[in-house]
Amino acid sequence: MTKRFKIIGFDADDTLWINEPYFHETEELFLELLSDFESPETISRELYKTEMENLEQYGYGAKGFMLSMIEIAMRLSNNKVGNDVINKIIDLGKDLINKPIILLDGVEETLVNLKDVGFSLIIATKGDLLDQERKLSKSKIGKYFNHIEIMSDKKESDYRKLLSHLDIIPNDFLMVGNSLKSDILPVLNMGAFAIHIPYHTNWKHEKIEKPDDLKNYWEIKNISEIEEILA
Amino acid sequence: MTKRFKIIGFDADDTLWINEPYFHETEELFLELLSDFESPETISRELYKTEMENLEQYGYGAKGFMLSMIEIAMRLSNNKVGNDVINKIIDLGKDLINKPIILLDGVEETLVNLKDVGFSLIIATKGDLLDQERKLSKSKIGKYFNHIEIMSDKKESDYRKLLSHLDIIPNDFLMVGNSLKSDILPVLNMGAFAIHIPYHTNWKHEKIEKPDDLKNYWEIKNISEIEEILA
Repeated sequence: MTKRFKIIGFDADDTLWINEPYFHETEELFLELLSDFESPETISRELYKTEMENLEQYGYGAKGFMLSMIEIAMRLSNNKVGNDVINKIIDLGKDLINKPIILLDGVEETLVNLKDVGFSLIIATKGDLLDQERKLSKSKIGKYFNHIEIMSDKKESDYRKLLSHLDIIPNDFLMVGNSLKSDILPVLNMGAFAIHIPYHTNWKHEKIEKPDDLKNYWEIKNISEIEEILA
Repeated sequence: MTKRFKIIGFDADDTLWINEPYFHETEELFLELLSDFESPETISRELYKTEMENLEQYGYGAKGFMLSMIEIAMRLSNNKVGNDVINKIIDLGKDLINKPIILLDGVEETLVNLKDVGFSLIIATKGDLLDQERKLSKSKIGKYFNHIEIMSDKKESDYRKLLSHLDIIPNDFLMVGNSLKSDILPVLNMGAFAIHIPYHTNWKHEKIEKPDDLKNYWEIKNISEIEEILA
Protein backbone atom coordinates (compact mmCIF):
# COMPACT_ATOMS: atom_id res chain seq x y z
CA MET A 1 0.00 0.00 0.00
CA THR A 2 1.23 3.49 -0.76
CA LYS A 3 0.93 6.12 1.92
CA ARG A 4 -1.12 8.44 -0.24
CA PHE A 5 -2.88 9.95 2.78
CA LYS A 6 -1.29 11.13 6.00
CA ILE A 7 -4.30 10.34 8.17
CA ILE A 8 -7.26 8.02 7.74
CA GLY A 9 -10.32 8.90 9.83
CA PHE A 10 -12.92 6.33 10.77
CA ASP A 11 -16.46 6.89 11.86
CA ALA A 12 -17.31 4.48 14.70
CA ASP A 13 -21.02 3.62 15.03
CA ASP A 14 -22.04 1.22 12.24
CA THR A 15 -18.64 1.63 10.57
CA LEU A 16 -16.44 -0.11 13.16
CA TRP A 17 -19.14 -1.66 15.34
CA ILE A 18 -22.88 -2.36 15.48
CA ASN A 19 -24.98 0.54 16.82
CA GLU A 20 -28.10 1.48 14.90
CA PRO A 21 -29.69 -2.01 15.21
CA TYR A 22 -29.57 -1.57 19.02
CA PHE A 23 -31.39 1.76 18.82
CA HIS A 24 -33.88 0.19 16.40
CA GLU A 25 -34.46 -2.75 18.75
CA THR A 26 -35.01 -0.32 21.65
CA GLU A 27 -37.52 1.66 19.62
CA GLU A 28 -39.43 -1.54 18.72
CA LEU A 29 -39.76 -2.38 22.41
CA PHE A 30 -40.87 1.20 23.10
CA LEU A 31 -43.57 0.96 20.39
CA GLU A 32 -44.88 -2.19 22.07
CA LEU A 33 -44.89 -0.49 25.47
CA LEU A 34 -47.18 2.24 24.11
CA SER A 35 -49.37 -0.01 21.95
CA ASP A 36 -52.43 0.73 24.14
CA PHE A 37 -52.27 4.39 23.15
CA GLU A 38 -51.27 4.69 19.49
CA SER A 39 -50.29 2.78 16.37
CA PRO A 40 -46.58 1.95 15.94
CA GLU A 41 -46.44 4.25 12.88
CA THR A 42 -47.77 7.26 14.78
CA ILE A 43 -45.54 6.68 17.80
CA SER A 44 -42.48 6.22 15.61
CA ARG A 45 -43.25 9.38 13.61
CA GLU A 46 -43.91 11.48 16.73
CA LEU A 47 -40.84 10.12 18.49
CA TYR A 48 -38.63 11.13 15.56
CA LYS A 49 -40.22 14.58 15.48
CA THR A 50 -39.58 15.03 19.19
CA GLU A 51 -35.98 13.81 18.85
CA MET A 52 -35.40 16.39 16.14
CA GLU A 53 -36.99 19.15 18.23
CA ASN A 54 -34.78 18.19 21.17
CA LEU A 55 -31.59 17.65 19.17
CA GLU A 56 -30.19 21.12 19.73
CA GLN A 57 -30.68 20.77 23.47
CA TYR A 58 -29.83 17.10 23.99
CA GLY A 59 -27.46 16.24 21.13
CA TYR A 60 -26.97 12.67 19.89
CA GLY A 61 -26.93 9.62 22.12
CA ALA A 62 -28.81 7.34 24.45
CA LYS A 63 -29.73 9.86 27.18
CA GLY A 64 -31.44 12.28 24.81
CA PHE A 65 -33.24 9.31 23.23
CA MET A 66 -34.50 8.24 26.67
CA LEU A 67 -35.77 11.72 27.51
CA SER A 68 -37.55 12.00 24.15
CA MET A 69 -39.19 8.60 24.65
CA ILE A 70 -40.46 9.65 28.09
CA GLU A 71 -41.77 12.94 26.69
CA ILE A 72 -43.58 11.25 23.81
CA ALA A 73 -45.07 8.54 26.06
CA MET A 74 -46.73 11.26 28.14
CA ARG A 75 -47.85 13.29 25.14
CA LEU A 76 -49.34 10.41 23.13
CA SER A 77 -51.17 9.01 26.17
CA ASN A 78 -52.66 12.42 26.96
CA ASN A 79 -50.64 12.34 30.16
CA LYS A 80 -52.22 9.06 31.25
CA VAL A 81 -49.21 6.81 30.93
CA GLY A 82 -48.37 5.01 34.19
CA ASN A 83 -45.13 5.11 36.14
CA ASP A 84 -44.68 1.43 35.25
CA VAL A 85 -44.23 2.35 31.57
CA ILE A 86 -41.87 5.26 32.35
CA ASN A 87 -39.79 3.00 34.56
CA LYS A 88 -39.61 0.51 31.70
CA ILE A 89 -38.45 3.25 29.32
CA ILE A 90 -35.62 4.06 31.73
CA ASP A 91 -34.72 0.37 31.89
CA LEU A 92 -34.75 0.16 28.08
CA GLY A 93 -32.36 3.12 27.93
CA LYS A 94 -29.99 1.66 30.52
CA ASP A 95 -30.02 -1.64 28.62
CA LEU A 96 -29.16 0.28 25.46
CA ILE A 97 -26.23 1.99 27.19
CA ASN A 98 -24.95 -1.38 28.40
CA LYS A 99 -25.14 -3.26 25.08
CA PRO A 100 -22.04 -5.22 24.13
CA ILE A 101 -19.81 -3.85 21.39
CA ILE A 102 -19.62 -6.15 18.39
CA LEU A 103 -17.05 -5.25 15.73
CA LEU A 104 -18.18 -5.40 12.13
CA ASP A 105 -16.69 -8.04 9.87
CA GLY A 106 -13.08 -7.34 8.82
CA VAL A 107 -12.54 -4.33 11.08
CA GLU A 108 -9.68 -5.49 13.27
CA GLU A 109 -7.64 -7.13 10.45
CA THR A 110 -7.97 -4.00 8.32
CA LEU A 111 -6.85 -1.71 11.14
CA VAL A 112 -3.85 -3.96 11.85
CA ASN A 113 -2.85 -3.97 8.17
CA LEU A 114 -3.21 -0.21 7.72
CA LYS A 115 -1.26 0.39 10.93
CA ASP A 116 1.46 -1.99 9.74
CA VAL A 117 1.97 0.02 6.56
CA GLY A 118 2.42 3.11 8.72
CA PHE A 119 -0.85 4.99 8.31
CA SER A 120 -1.96 7.28 11.13
CA LEU A 121 -5.47 6.23 12.04
CA ILE A 122 -7.98 8.31 13.97
CA ILE A 123 -11.60 7.90 15.04
CA ALA A 124 -13.92 10.82 14.27
CA THR A 125 -17.24 10.02 15.84
CA LYS A 126 -20.34 11.98 16.69
CA GLY A 127 -22.31 11.56 19.86
CA ASP A 128 -22.36 11.57 23.60
CA LEU A 129 -18.83 11.75 25.09
CA LEU A 130 -19.28 9.09 27.77
CA ASP A 131 -21.27 6.75 25.46
CA GLN A 132 -18.56 6.89 22.82
CA GLU A 133 -15.67 6.47 25.27
CA ARG A 134 -17.43 3.50 26.83
CA LYS A 135 -17.96 1.87 23.44
CA LEU A 136 -14.35 2.45 22.44
CA SER A 137 -13.11 0.95 25.68
CA LYS A 138 -15.35 -2.11 25.27
CA SER A 139 -14.29 -2.48 21.62
CA LYS A 140 -10.62 -3.11 22.60
CA ILE A 141 -9.46 -1.48 19.34
CA GLY A 142 -8.47 1.89 20.81
CA LYS A 143 -4.80 0.85 20.56
CA TYR A 144 -4.84 1.13 16.75
CA PHE A 145 -5.71 4.83 16.78
CA ASN A 146 -3.38 7.82 17.18
CA HIS A 147 -6.23 10.12 18.11
CA ILE A 148 -9.88 9.90 19.07
CA GLU A 149 -12.10 12.85 18.24
CA ILE A 150 -15.59 12.81 19.71
CA MET A 151 -17.57 15.54 18.00
CA SER A 152 -20.92 17.06 18.90
CA ASP A 153 -21.67 17.29 15.16
CA LYS A 154 -20.09 16.38 11.82
CA LYS A 155 -20.62 19.36 9.58
CA GLU A 156 -17.95 20.66 7.20
CA SER A 157 -16.90 23.29 9.77
CA ASP A 158 -16.40 20.54 12.38
CA TYR A 159 -14.11 18.62 10.01
CA ARG A 160 -12.19 21.81 9.21
CA LYS A 161 -11.56 22.31 12.92
CA LEU A 162 -10.44 18.70 13.23
CA LEU A 163 -7.95 18.98 10.34
CA SER A 164 -6.60 22.23 11.68
CA HIS A 165 -6.12 20.53 15.06
CA LEU A 166 -4.37 17.58 13.34
CA ASP A 167 -2.29 20.10 11.39
CA ILE A 168 -2.95 18.58 7.94
CA ILE A 169 -4.53 19.83 4.72
CA PRO A 170 -7.66 18.20 3.19
CA ASN A 171 -5.53 16.56 0.46
CA ASP A 172 -3.85 14.43 3.14
CA PHE A 173 -7.06 13.20 4.73
CA LEU A 174 -9.24 10.20 3.93
CA MET A 175 -12.46 9.61 5.86
CA VAL A 176 -14.24 6.25 6.08
CA GLY A 177 -17.83 5.90 7.24
CA ASN A 178 -21.36 4.64 6.74
CA SER A 179 -23.20 7.95 6.62
CA LEU A 180 -23.19 9.93 3.35
CA LYS A 181 -24.51 12.93 5.26
CA SER A 182 -22.05 12.94 8.18
CA ASP A 183 -18.96 11.07 7.01
CA ILE A 184 -18.77 11.60 3.25
CA LEU A 185 -20.33 14.78 1.82
CA PRO A 186 -18.88 17.34 4.30
CA VAL A 187 -15.45 15.73 3.86
CA LEU A 188 -15.62 15.81 0.04
CA ASN A 189 -16.89 19.38 0.19
CA MET A 190 -13.73 20.59 1.85
CA GLY A 191 -11.56 18.80 -0.72
CA ALA A 192 -10.58 15.68 1.20
CA PHE A 193 -11.21 12.03 0.21
CA ALA A 194 -13.90 9.64 1.43
CA ILE A 195 -14.82 5.98 1.35
CA HIS A 196 -18.46 5.10 1.92
CA ILE A 197 -19.38 1.75 3.43
CA PRO A 198 -23.20 1.73 3.46
CA TYR A 199 -24.70 -0.14 6.39
CA HIS A 200 -27.89 -2.16 6.01
CA THR A 201 -29.77 0.18 8.31
CA ASN A 202 -29.44 3.92 8.82
CA TRP A 203 -31.07 6.29 11.26
CA LYS A 204 -33.70 8.36 9.43
CA HIS A 205 -31.81 11.54 10.40
CA GLU A 206 -28.73 10.36 8.45
CA LYS A 207 -30.58 9.55 5.23
CA ILE A 208 -29.84 11.72 2.22
CA GLU A 209 -29.94 11.45 -1.58
CA LYS A 210 -26.60 10.55 -3.13
CA PRO A 211 -25.41 13.21 -5.60
CA ASP A 212 -24.33 11.83 -9.01
CA ASP A 213 -20.97 13.44 -9.57
CA LEU A 214 -18.88 12.67 -6.52
CA LYS A 215 -15.12 13.03 -6.88
CA ASN A 216 -12.40 11.63 -4.59
CA TYR A 217 -14.97 9.07 -3.54
CA TRP A 218 -15.27 5.29 -3.39
CA GLU A 219 -18.08 3.05 -2.26
CA ILE A 220 -17.26 -0.39 -0.88
CA LYS A 221 -19.18 -3.23 0.77
CA ASN A 222 -16.67 -4.28 3.41
CA ILE A 223 -14.00 -2.33 5.29
CA SER A 224 -11.28 -4.74 4.10
CA GLU A 225 -11.65 -3.34 0.56
CA ILE A 226 -9.90 -0.15 1.76
CA GLU A 227 -6.62 -2.00 1.31
CA GLU A 228 -7.35 -2.56 -2.40
CA ILE A 229 -8.18 1.12 -2.91
CA LEU A 230 -4.91 2.15 -1.27
CA ALA A 231 -2.91 -0.57 -3.11
CA MET B 1 5.00 38.03 34.12
CA THR B 2 7.56 35.31 33.48
CA LYS B 3 6.53 32.43 31.29
CA ARG B 4 7.29 29.83 33.90
CA PHE B 5 4.67 27.44 32.50
CA LYS B 6 4.13 26.47 28.88
CA ILE B 7 0.42 25.90 29.23
CA ILE B 8 -2.18 27.08 31.74
CA GLY B 9 -5.31 24.93 31.95
CA PHE B 10 -8.59 26.29 33.24
CA ASP B 11 -11.55 24.39 34.57
CA ALA B 12 -14.75 25.97 33.25
CA ASP B 13 -17.85 25.44 35.46
CA ASP B 14 -17.61 27.67 38.56
CA THR B 15 -14.05 28.68 37.62
CA LEU B 16 -14.78 30.74 34.48
CA TRP B 17 -18.57 30.95 34.73
CA ILE B 18 -21.48 30.28 37.07
CA ASN B 19 -22.78 26.70 37.01
CA GLU B 20 -23.40 24.98 40.32
CA PRO B 21 -25.91 27.63 41.55
CA TYR B 22 -28.07 26.76 38.51
CA PHE B 23 -28.06 23.06 39.39
CA HIS B 24 -28.79 23.97 43.00
CA GLU B 25 -31.71 26.20 41.96
CA THR B 26 -33.08 23.38 39.78
CA GLU B 27 -32.84 20.93 42.66
CA GLU B 28 -34.69 23.36 44.98
CA LEU B 29 -37.57 23.54 42.48
CA PHE B 30 -37.53 19.75 42.19
CA LEU B 31 -37.78 19.39 45.99
CA GLU B 32 -40.83 21.63 45.95
CA LEU B 33 -42.41 19.60 43.15
CA LEU B 34 -42.17 16.45 45.27
CA SER B 35 -43.11 18.06 48.58
CA ASP B 36 -46.35 16.03 48.76
CA PHE B 37 -44.36 12.82 48.94
CA GLU B 38 -41.25 13.35 51.07
CA SER B 39 -39.25 15.87 53.07
CA PRO B 40 -36.69 17.99 51.18
CA GLU B 41 -33.86 16.31 53.12
CA THR B 42 -34.95 12.80 52.12
CA ILE B 43 -35.51 13.72 48.48
CA SER B 44 -32.16 15.49 48.27
CA ARG B 45 -30.33 12.56 49.87
CA GLU B 46 -32.03 9.97 47.64
CA LEU B 47 -31.49 12.07 44.53
CA TYR B 48 -27.77 12.29 45.24
CA LYS B 49 -27.61 8.52 45.88
CA THR B 50 -29.36 7.86 42.54
CA GLU B 51 -27.09 10.30 40.70
CA MET B 52 -24.06 8.44 42.05
CA GLU B 53 -25.53 5.06 41.11
CA ASN B 54 -26.20 6.34 37.59
CA LEU B 55 -22.91 8.21 37.19
CA GLU B 56 -21.09 5.39 35.40
CA GLN B 57 -23.92 5.06 32.90
CA TYR B 58 -24.93 8.71 32.46
CA GLY B 59 -21.79 10.68 33.24
CA TYR B 60 -21.89 14.33 34.35
CA GLY B 61 -24.34 16.90 33.00
CA ALA B 62 -27.92 18.05 32.73
CA LYS B 63 -29.41 15.04 30.91
CA GLY B 64 -28.24 12.52 33.47
CA PHE B 65 -29.52 14.84 36.20
CA MET B 66 -32.95 14.95 34.51
CA LEU B 67 -33.14 11.17 34.21
CA SER B 68 -32.15 10.73 37.87
CA MET B 69 -34.80 13.27 38.98
CA ILE B 70 -37.48 11.38 37.02
CA GLU B 71 -36.35 8.07 38.49
CA ILE B 72 -36.37 9.38 42.06
CA ALA B 73 -39.76 11.08 41.63
CA MET B 74 -41.29 7.71 40.76
CA ARG B 75 -39.47 5.80 43.47
CA LEU B 76 -40.22 8.24 46.34
CA SER B 77 -43.89 8.51 45.34
CA ASN B 78 -44.25 4.72 45.25
CA ASN B 79 -44.91 5.09 41.52
CA LYS B 80 -47.84 7.43 42.12
CA VAL B 81 -46.31 10.61 40.76
CA GLY B 82 -48.41 12.15 37.97
CA ASN B 83 -47.39 12.93 34.41
CA ASP B 84 -47.77 16.63 35.28
CA VAL B 85 -44.82 16.42 37.68
CA ILE B 86 -42.67 14.43 35.24
CA ASN B 87 -43.41 16.97 32.52
CA LYS B 88 -42.34 19.71 34.91
CA ILE B 89 -39.08 17.89 35.63
CA ILE B 90 -38.37 17.80 31.90
CA ASP B 91 -39.12 21.52 31.69
CA LEU B 92 -36.81 22.20 34.64
CA GLY B 93 -34.05 20.28 32.85
CA LYS B 94 -34.54 22.13 29.58
CA ASP B 95 -34.50 25.43 31.48
CA LEU B 96 -31.24 24.38 33.11
CA ILE B 97 -29.72 23.58 29.70
CA ASN B 98 -30.78 26.99 28.40
CA LYS B 99 -29.45 29.11 31.29
CA PRO B 100 -27.37 32.12 30.31
CA ILE B 101 -23.62 31.98 30.82
CA ILE B 102 -22.38 34.56 33.28
CA LEU B 103 -18.63 34.99 33.58
CA LEU B 104 -17.15 35.19 37.05
CA ASP B 105 -15.60 38.45 38.19
CA GLY B 106 -12.21 39.19 36.61
CA VAL B 107 -12.22 36.29 34.15
CA GLU B 108 -12.02 38.07 30.82
CA GLU B 109 -9.41 40.67 31.89
CA THR B 110 -7.20 37.92 33.32
CA LEU B 111 -7.41 35.82 30.15
CA VAL B 112 -6.58 38.86 28.03
CA ASN B 113 -3.56 39.70 30.20
CA LEU B 114 -2.21 36.13 30.27
CA LYS B 115 -2.69 35.83 26.53
CA ASP B 116 -0.88 39.16 26.02
CA VAL B 117 2.18 37.87 27.87
CA GLY B 118 2.21 34.88 25.52
CA PHE B 119 0.86 32.05 27.63
CA SER B 120 -0.91 29.17 25.87
CA LEU B 121 -4.28 28.81 27.56
CA ILE B 122 -6.53 25.76 27.41
CA ILE B 123 -9.84 24.73 28.94
CA ALA B 124 -9.95 21.32 30.60
CA THR B 125 -13.53 20.71 31.61
CA LYS B 126 -15.53 17.69 32.68
CA GLY B 127 -19.05 17.00 31.55
CA ASP B 128 -21.45 16.50 28.72
CA LEU B 129 -19.89 17.36 25.35
CA LEU B 130 -22.80 19.33 23.94
CA ASP B 131 -23.54 21.10 27.26
CA GLN B 132 -19.93 22.25 27.53
CA GLU B 133 -19.64 23.33 23.88
CA ARG B 134 -22.87 25.28 24.19
CA LYS B 135 -21.66 27.03 27.34
CA LEU B 136 -18.33 27.89 25.74
CA SER B 137 -20.02 29.30 22.69
CA LYS B 138 -22.39 31.41 24.81
CA SER B 139 -19.47 32.61 26.97
CA LYS B 140 -17.75 34.32 23.98
CA ILE B 141 -14.34 33.65 25.52
CA GLY B 142 -13.41 30.67 23.31
CA LYS B 143 -11.07 32.94 21.34
CA TYR B 144 -8.61 33.17 24.23
CA PHE B 145 -7.94 29.42 24.26
CA ASN B 146 -5.54 27.40 22.11
CA HIS B 147 -7.31 24.15 22.89
CA ILE B 148 -10.52 22.96 24.52
CA GLU B 149 -10.49 19.55 26.16
CA ILE B 150 -13.87 18.19 27.25
CA MET B 151 -13.20 15.18 29.46
CA SER B 152 -15.56 12.49 30.69
CA ASP B 153 -13.63 12.51 33.98
CA LYS B 154 -10.75 14.34 35.66
CA LYS B 155 -8.66 11.66 37.30
CA GLU B 156 -4.85 11.69 37.27
CA SER B 157 -4.86 9.29 34.29
CA ASP B 158 -7.11 11.67 32.34
CA TYR B 159 -4.69 14.56 32.96
CA ARG B 160 -1.74 12.37 31.93
CA LYS B 161 -3.48 11.65 28.63
CA LEU B 162 -4.15 15.36 28.16
CA LEU B 163 -0.50 16.31 28.76
CA SER B 164 0.72 13.59 26.43
CA HIS B 165 -1.68 14.90 23.79
CA LEU B 166 -0.40 18.46 24.37
CA ASP B 167 3.15 17.11 24.21
CA ILE B 168 4.34 18.73 27.47
CA ILE B 169 5.71 17.44 30.77
CA PRO B 170 3.96 18.06 34.13
CA ASN B 171 6.59 20.64 35.09
CA ASP B 172 5.33 22.88 32.24
CA PHE B 173 1.67 22.71 33.23
CA LEU B 174 -0.38 24.85 35.61
CA MET B 175 -4.03 24.02 36.25
CA VAL B 176 -6.56 26.51 37.66
CA GLY B 177 -9.91 25.43 39.08
CA ASN B 178 -12.47 25.45 41.87
CA SER B 179 -12.51 21.74 42.70
CA LEU B 180 -9.77 20.32 44.92
CA LYS B 181 -10.84 16.84 43.90
CA SER B 182 -10.99 17.30 40.13
CA ASP B 183 -8.76 20.26 39.31
CA ILE B 184 -6.06 20.32 41.98
CA LEU B 185 -5.13 17.01 43.64
CA PRO B 186 -4.81 14.83 40.49
CA VAL B 187 -2.72 17.56 38.87
CA LEU B 188 -0.39 17.93 41.89
CA ASN B 189 -0.13 14.13 42.10
CA MET B 190 1.43 13.90 38.69
CA GLY B 191 3.94 16.65 39.49
CA ALA B 192 2.32 19.64 37.82
CA PHE B 193 1.25 22.92 39.45
CA ALA B 194 -2.20 24.08 40.54
CA ILE B 195 -4.08 27.17 41.66
CA HIS B 196 -7.24 26.64 43.65
CA ILE B 197 -10.01 29.25 43.52
CA PRO B 198 -12.67 27.94 45.93
CA TYR B 199 -16.21 28.78 44.87
CA HIS B 200 -18.86 29.59 47.45
CA THR B 201 -20.83 26.47 46.59
CA ASN B 202 -19.62 23.05 45.49
CA TRP B 203 -21.49 19.96 44.37
CA LYS B 204 -21.42 17.38 47.16
CA HIS B 205 -19.63 14.96 44.82
CA GLU B 206 -16.68 17.36 44.51
CA LYS B 207 -16.19 17.90 48.24
CA ILE B 208 -13.03 16.52 49.76
CA GLU B 209 -10.78 17.21 52.77
CA LYS B 210 -7.80 19.41 51.95
CA PRO B 211 -4.49 17.67 52.74
CA ASP B 212 -2.06 19.75 54.84
CA ASP B 213 1.18 19.53 52.94
CA LEU B 214 0.42 20.57 49.39
CA LYS B 215 3.37 21.55 47.22
CA ASN B 216 3.33 23.50 43.94
CA TYR B 217 0.00 24.86 45.09
CA TRP B 218 -1.62 28.24 45.65
CA GLU B 219 -5.05 29.21 46.88
CA ILE B 220 -6.55 32.50 45.74
CA LYS B 221 -9.89 34.27 46.07
CA ASN B 222 -10.20 35.79 42.60
CA ILE B 223 -8.88 34.65 39.24
CA SER B 224 -7.08 38.00 38.72
CA GLU B 225 -4.60 37.02 41.48
CA ILE B 226 -3.05 34.51 39.04
CA GLU B 227 -1.14 37.42 37.56
CA GLU B 228 0.50 38.17 40.93
CA ILE B 229 1.54 34.53 41.35
CA LEU B 230 3.13 34.51 37.92
CA ALA B 231 4.72 37.94 38.42
